[in-house]
Amino acid sequence: MNVATEKPTQVAKNNRRSNSSPPPVRVYSLGGLGEIGKNMYGVEYKNEIIIIDAGLKFPESRLTGIDYIIPDITYLIENRHKIKGLFLTHGHEDHIGALPFVLRQLSVPVYGGPLTIGLVKAKLEEYRMLGEVKLHVYEESDRFQFQHLAVHFFRTTHSIPDAFGIVIDTPYGAVVHTGDFKFDFTPEDRPADLFKMAAVGGEGVLALLADSTNSEKEGFTPSERKVGTSILETFRQCEGRILFATFASNVHRLQQVVDAAILCNRKIVVIGRSMDKAFSIGQDLGYIRIPDGMLIDVKHIDRYEDRQILIVCTGSQGEPNAALSRIASGAHRTVQIYPGDTVIFSSSPIPGNGQNVNRVIDTLMRADANVIYGSIFDIHTSGHGNREDLKLMLSFIRPKYFIPIHGEYRMLLRHKDLAIQTGLTEDRVFLLNLGETVSIYRNRAKRGRTIPSGEVFVSNGEMRVQEEQLVEERLELSQEGIVIVVMTVDGKTGQILAGPDIVTRGFVYMQDARPLLRRAETVLKRNLAKMAEKQAFDKAVWLRSVHKSMRKYFMKEVGRAPHIMPSILEVK
Amino acid sequence: MNVATEKPTQVAKNNRRSNSSPPPVRVYSLGGLGEIGKNMYGVEYKNEIIIIDAGLKFPESRLTGIDYIIPDITYLIENRHKIKGLFLTHGHEDHIGALPFVLRQLSVPVYGGPLTIGLVKAKLEEYRMLGEVKLHVYEESDRFQFQHLAVHFFRTTHSIPDAFGIVIDTPYGAVVHTGDFKFDFTPEDRPADLFKMAAVGGEGVLALLADSTNSEKEGFTPSERKVGTSILETFRQCEGRILFATFASNVHRLQQVVDAAILCNRKIVVIGRSMDKAFSIGQDLGYIRIPDGMLIDVKHIDRYEDRQILIVCTGSQGEPNAALSRIASGAHRTVQIYPGDTVIFSSSPIPGNGQNVNRVIDTLMRADANVIYGSIFDIHTSGHGNREDLKLMLSFIRPKYFIPIHGEYRMLLRHKDLAIQTGLTEDRVFLLNLGETVSIYRNRAKRGRTIPSGEVFVSNGEMRVQEEQLVEERLELSQEGIVIVVMTVDGKTGQILAGPDIVTRGFVYMQDARPLLRRAETVLKRNLAKMAEKQAFDKAVWLRSVHKSMRKYFMKEVGRAPHIMPSILEVK
Repeated sequence: MNVATEKPTQVAKNNRRSNSSPPPVRVYSLGGLGEIGKNMYGVEYKNEIIIIDAGLKFPESRLTGIDYIIPDITYLIENRHKIKGLFLTHGHEDHIGALPFVLRQLSVPVYGGPLTIGLVKAKLEEYRMLGEVKLHVYEESDRFQFQHLAVHFFRTTHSIPDAFGIVIDTPYGAVVHTGDFKFDFTPEDRPADLFKMAAVGGEGVLALLADSTNSEKEGFTPSERKVGTSILETFRQCEGRILFATFASNVHRLQQVVDAAILCNRKIVVIGRSMDKAFSIGQDLGYIRIPDGMLIDVKHIDRYEDRQILIVCTGSQGEPNAALSRIASGAHRTVQIYPGDTVIFSSSPIPGNGQNVNRVIDTLMRADANVIYGSIFDIHTSGHGNREDLKLMLSFIRPKYFIPIHGEYRMLLRHKDLAIQTGLTEDRVFLLNLGETVSIYRNRAKRGRTIPSGEVFVSNGEMRVQEEQLVEERLELSQEGIVIVVMTVDGKTGQILAGPDIVTRGFVYMQDARPLLRRAETVLKRNLAKMAEKQAFDKAVWLRSVHKSMRKYFMKEVGRAPHIMPSILEVK
Repeated sequence: MNVATEKPTQVAKNNRRSNSSPPPVRVYSLGGLGEIGKNMYGVEYKNEIIIIDAGLKFPESRLTGIDYIIPDITYLIENRHKIKGLFLTHGHEDHIGALPFVLRQLSVPVYGGPLTIGLVKAKLEEYRMLGEVKLHVYEESDRFQFQHLAVHFFRTTHSIPDAFGIVIDTPYGAVVHTGDFKFDFTPEDRPADLFKMAAVGGEGVLALLADSTNSEKEGFTPSERKVGTSILETFRQCEGRILFATFASNVHRLQQVVDAAILCNRKIVVIGRSMDKAFSIGQDLGYIRIPDGMLIDVKHIDRYEDRQILIVCTGSQGEPNAALSRIASGAHRTVQIYPGDTVIFSSSPIPGNGQNVNRVIDTLMRADANVIYGSIFDIHTSGHGNREDLKLMLSFIRPKYFIPIHGEYRMLLRHKDLAIQTGLTEDRVFLLNLGETVSIYRNRAKRGRTIPSGEVFVSNGEMRVQEEQLVEERLELSQEGIVIVVMTVDGKTGQILAGPDIVTRGFVYMQDARPLLRRAETVLKRNLAKMAEKQAFDKAVWLRSVHKSMRKYFMKEVGRAPHIMPSILEVK
């Protein structure tokens, strides 16, 4: 069944010669190691590359003006002739979000589960790229055979339907990539295919790449079922309107909310662009089932009593422009908060979003809403497996070599510990950095050469390669502001014809600072006049002099050094 | 004993007339409500004001260039003649950090426990203000009597020694301010004075202001003793060097660390300016006891074996310039991380610091250090009381009126719930905003007028009143960068003599953008030439035109609008 098991004995026997001759299976990551997000992995053998996922991540707040960060795919572009396909594990942004940008640079067929491809279609439509890309829906029984490699799948459970693990059969055995997963034995959707996992493990797995996100958390991750029960119980206790905020992509959660709304006799109002999209794609593909007449338009909300209304909206991460934040701050056109409303946050804050979430919660509470959040109720569970889930996966797959993926370094390290607990020796676990490759042979593995990798910034839908330097410049401007010095000089005599004029932004309060700036102009004139006496006019020298004397002046007068930009115009 | 209990019956009987005539006890906050930090509270009766605490808070990351935020004390300045004293509950920055700035604007005697005043002295010395301020050390048995008001204290337990609750006796009964506290029945230091609390409560308390920081957390807060045991156990398992990072102000924790070092036979190296200060003040005042010869200079670290070394350092919050961050990144002069080192984070990240802490942890792990952090070990406990602690305080004090303080709105709200659970009716609990006052009489209380309150930004040791506008300007610069357009014009004819020159920062990558900017200059010249044909030169009109045409040009060419600053110099 395994495609390339021919001649195994010959290679194994002739060990010394085979050290140099047989080509390795190479495994590497272009995103997702030492970070959360922008997941992208490659498995390569001879002239064939399989890519797994193409995700984005959100920038730290210091990267002002940047919308998201995607992987640098220079290596894939250089090796485009080898790429057989880009296989998606599931439809979350950190796994599919870089697709429009990857596909602008690389023409490659994309494979994904039904919901995943549904979400990819909507995304490509947004970028007006839908016609240009070959999209393939795979089912869990599918198998894609290439010359040396073959790709097949096993269904897992995660916080979005159609999450799959990917198996790549290579001449030396299977390389298994789990995608994001947890073991949910009572999922809302179809269960994980444990038999397939066991079968794959039983045939002997060369290498496992497994999700490390929750490797610091003890026990098993609670089931989605438990959340469904909590949602219904919470709904039953509410007498006013309910506002329910969660990730739009968590289609299971949306179905749970619909089910609870049916039992509590509430109409559903959907608010927020991505939530609208999730409901429409989810219904089209049969993942969300809603009785006729139950979805109502926000315009008709006043036709019903408060206890008949459920609002499902985006903004569970406190995103300033999302529906819930606008509703909370009174900036939404139709919906405002009033006493008696219950707002439910069914999500936990992604690191970095905590303060935004808290701000929205506080605003809602000040408007006298009843707010349910955090660990007060079992109103949310993670989609990622905790330590026991991870050990179970390691036990199913029993790989020869292990590469923890999806996580910051400490999570990878903790996952490594788990692998060693389940019986792997330390030399068989590879903690990689982005771009580092592992060369795996039938019975040995070693670190190989490093390939190009890095971050590409995206802003307003455009990739910006040199943006890092611009971000640094903007950071400097944002620290102490800017002082601009402008003057016109007679290019022959060095006589100042106009100026110097000094204006500032973000440095000193202009109204109060006029005397300070006028004095600066006087100081500058005197310094330049002295220079003009001694030597002929030289623009570069003058610019340096302006920079230096203004820096000195402001340090002395204000105790701070702004970014100084002198500009000298010559009239000849 | 209570100073002003004369004529109580008369006031109580003549209820109707007293509605308007007797003056209220007024309670308000200038910082610490709806936020964590910059704590400052006032209790006022007739011509007397008692101030409690003067803290700072750290700004959100979007407030670039701001070091911290302190309360606006306009109201206190206007009423400076009434102020009897500024009483400090304990020595943490969010309670004493605004002192140098408050004392620049207000000459007022400061009272605090022994360690608190020790820390205040060090702070005022730094600001060269030590000679100008009257500092008084209070002991728990002290009582300060003013005309109508009297101030006395009860010892509490917190994450710093000498933490006190403050009792202000008023004609209508006592107003109690808990400061920060938890109930630690096995503290490292002296225990809380439960008898005094019970006695104060027994005499009848008018109003309680109590710490709400942990009002969302169930149970009792674990004792410091438990942490001491964990530290010793952890030290015993380490074979290489140990680096221990915690808050410098947690003097108990430092003593625990010293004790564990004694038992494990390790020398102590102290790194970090505030840690140095904590050890020296702590030793001077007798809070930290260290055997002779146990503290060694970092320069002599190589004279000892790894298993004989304990480094105690700042940086447990991932602060980029603190000792631990510099050590982790290889930027420290003497100490680097090497395999076998164990680094212990004995603190939990303050909201907003999580990503910084994670970055330092990852860097340490990549250097092969063993890192102990978070909830893996009982290596840290909070200094604030959880829900059971808070209920116990409410039960001891049994106030007539309750004002939850120290916390974001949702924490205050949860604390209110607890007060109601312990028997207070809803109308006796006041959830205030900054500047809102409560007027309390013997048997009733109501919201009073609002006094000025707000935020003052501090940067480089200076208060900056209008900084908010500058921050907005800097934020704008940091979003898309800046484009500067400069030209010289003949003031009579409107002829362009030099320029336009266009330079940018943070907008486009200058090397690549030269053609783009040269084209912009051409477009601009053409537009202005057209204008000059039609009408006489008018600088204001030209400036608007430059702004408009450049904005349009860059939106069309680059799809983004930077901050545009035109500057026109006239030669006459």
